[in-house]
Amino acid sequence: MGRVVQKFGGSSVADAESIKRVARRVVATHKAGNDVVVVISAMGDTTDELLDLAHQVTPNPPGRELDMLLTAGERMSAALLAMAINDIGAQARSYTGSQAGVITTSKHGDARIIDITPGRIEKSLEKGFIVIVAGFQGVSQDTKDVTTLGRGASDTTAVALAGALGAQYCEIYTDVDGVFTADPRIVPQARQIPTLSYEEMLEMAASGTKILHLRCVEYARRELVPVHVRSSFSDKPGTWISALDEGNSMEAAIISGIAHDRSEAKITVASVPDTVGKAARIFSIIAEKDINIDMVVQNVAVGGNTTAISFTLPDADRPKAMEALEAAKEEIGFSHMTFDDAIGKVSVIGVGMRTHPGVTATFFDALAEAGINILMISTSEIRISVVIAEKDIDQAVRVAHTAFGFDSDTGEAVVYGGTGR
Amino acid sequence: MGRVVQKFGGSSVADAESIKRVARRVVATHKAGNDVVVVISAMGDTTDELLDLAHQVTPNPPGRELDMLLTAGERMSAALLAMAINDIGAQARSYTGSQAGVITTSKHGDARIIDITPGRIEKSLEKGFIVIVAGFQGVSQDTKDVTTLGRGASDTTAVALAGALGAQYCEIYTDVDGVFTADPRIVPQARQIPTLSYEEMLEMAASGTKILHLRCVEYARRELVPVHVRSSFSDKPGTWISALDEGNSMEAAIISGIAHDRSEAKITVASVPDTVGKAARIFSIIAEKDINIDMVVQNVAVGGNTTAISFTLPDADRPKAMEALEAAKEEIGFSHMTFDDAIGKVSVIGVGMRTHPGVTATFFDALAEAGINILMISTSEIRISVVIAEKDIDQAVRVAHTAFGFDSDTGEAVVYGGTGR
Repeated sequence: MGRVVQKFGGSSVADAESIKRVARRVVATHKAGNDVVVVISAMGDTTDELLDLAHQVTPNPPGRELDMLLTAGERMSAALLAMAINDIGAQARSYTGSQAGVITTSKHGDARIIDITPGRIEKSLEKGFIVIVAGFQGVSQDTKDVTTLGRGASDTTAVALAGALGAQYCEIYTDVDGVFTADPRIVPQARQIPTLSYEEMLEMAASGTKILHLRCVEYARRELVPVHVRSSFSDKPGTWISALDEGNSMEAAIISGIAHDRSEAKITVASVPDTVGKAARIFSIIAEKDINIDMVVQNVAVGGNTTAISFTLPDADRPKAMEALEAAKEEIGFSHMTFDDAIGKVSVIGVGMRTHPGVTATFFDALAEAGINILMISTSEIRISVVIAEKDIDQAVRVAHTAFGFDSDTGEAVVYGGTGR
Repeated sequence: MGRVVQKFGGSSVADAESIKRVARRVVATHKAGNDVVVVISAMGDTTDELLDLAHQVTPNPPGRELDMLLTAGERMSAALLAMAINDIGAQARSYTGSQAGVITTSKHGDARIIDITPGRIEKSLEKGFIVIVAGFQGVSQDTKDVTTLGRGASDTTAVALAGALGAQYCEIYTDVDGVFTADPRIVPQARQIPTLSYEEMLEMAASGTKILHLRCVEYARRELVPVHVRSSFSDKPGTWISALDEGNSMEAAIISGIAHDRSEAKITVASVPDTVGKAARIFSIIAEKDINIDMVVQNVAVGGNTTAISFTLPDADRPKAMEALEAAKEEIGFSHMTFDDAIGKVSVIGVGMRTHPGVTATFFDALAEAGINILMISTSEIRISVVIAEKDIDQAVRVAHTAFGFDSDTGEAVVYGGTGR
């Protein structure tokens, strides 16, 4: 009796049988009286296969043409899902991103949604059709060329459409049951989290939880679209992400979950002249390369007039960053660089942190008892992150999970009182 | 220099290597100073694979969604060719049929081109880009939905674009060297025809020569686009199809070639009351099913008041036609139907027939000498066709090829004078 957006990922539509299963679920939602808009990813490994084909033709495919090629993947799965829905007696119409009115910037391969003009979708919904939209793609406002929004961005398409269409909520169907207190591959007793605030999900996504893309959660928060992350292989409720009522935040879980990220690396720039602007120059050089820096630590050498600056960044960007810094070695005047890619980050996240002191102490005590050395620390209002050796990550996640009481069925967090954070 | 449209079929772009070869040929044409627009089919078996996928999902895919699915094929090959061209130093832009301004009727799977609005193509050409257009597809004028023009219709896209862009000519690259005096698989000494008139090519296409689609040739004739059919695997000149100068038609070859068609079947409706309108009713029933009848023979029974009507049609349409007639058996009042699908058609075609009598005699004498029985005959101003037993087709093509002098190197036709056609 409302309007719902459902998004299905590549693993949910890997073959004809899966597509038929998705069709049955979509039709059931429609029969329950809802307007249904479905956002779909490319089937299984299609995108990787198309990328492979492009690289057989040229080592450097131009972005415009690569987007033209890759968008064929979602076009195919969208049409096939529409056929499967028609086959079981409902009526569906598939639309490309461009037809659906997904207007983007013109940065091929990583375009941003500027606007949604869902005129054709609205008309189709009025006629009682189920609408299928090819995810991950749009059309550039300036050039009218086909664009893509970056890998995994079908989630963003879905949330943006839900916002533009005034949908009651957006369901993201995936191959897991929802968001967990920790990665169940590391902590088998990890529990599914029933509700999260946008802020918590943002922090989790930024801290390595792979379930939703950062940009998708940002969109959901801005448009206030409730998001339901759930399994396409069961009917169990998943994890709801929404604006938590501030009045309830006292009763919210102190810690919602533990995230980890193995993909970080650390660069140390040694013997930087301790002059105003030298550190700033390092970070502007990195920023010019479109690389995001995570944590920064500056060690002033005792008695000297130089300093060492360490920072973390995605390991994939490390070579590019070091190359750019090396080129500016004389200008900045540092002596040399070192790097460490055998590091990782573990974060504890929860809105309850705001009102419950002692979380940092609980976390750090647990790490200390396990003999895990903390290399760097960063915090936000609702998150504490530590950089540690990569080999220690699994154990750190496990001891934190235990320390915050997630192992027990009751879920009571054990938080030391008193000293504050 | 000029403006050229080049079309490459699926076998010319079967894999990455073939796409690179096509890219080199396109760039060479561009470097010679031409504006180049390329129309491309889907790679190799892509269309069949997509059809197979659709049928795994549903036995009856809706036309709109099937068109959405199938058009992904040309989109992929167009993008890949643009990448390959960029890789060797020229600049290319790929466009879907819709982006290229191919406006069609809304009959999915068999849409007709209504108009071409090539604004984006013109702009790209002005900037010096090579333009790649996905063949076989367009966008419906009424619904703005994606349409397809029917199998093999990329040739039609190419000729229509050549007309709309005022191109000097349209090159159709294929896996044979051009149009031959007969199918070289039947007549190894068959020779390539250097030039044909639109009318001859139309008759050949309608008589079973598979090289160009009838609709494509009709378009070329209407827009007066010279078409060059040639091999994508060599640089040899192929067959030019154009408006032959009437002044030269006396010197044109009397017969241009011999075509055959194994796909015909014959239906005989027996004991039809010999009343006004009964025969007409038979043909209107067939026409309502969108089936084209080729030849018709009516035998009046001696002394009786009934007649037998035989006609030929594509064998694929035979079951549907018989079903429709069976349903009208009482209305028409016939006794029963028989059919024969072991028949075929052999045709000799040439504009010189208009001014040279004796062609029919030469053809029929050759068949008689070979002991081949003629079942039905039909003629046009520049064509003579006979229906014969399917087992006799190869021999009929061979003896006609010899009788019209195509076997010798000089190519002199031996035509009996005197009796007229």
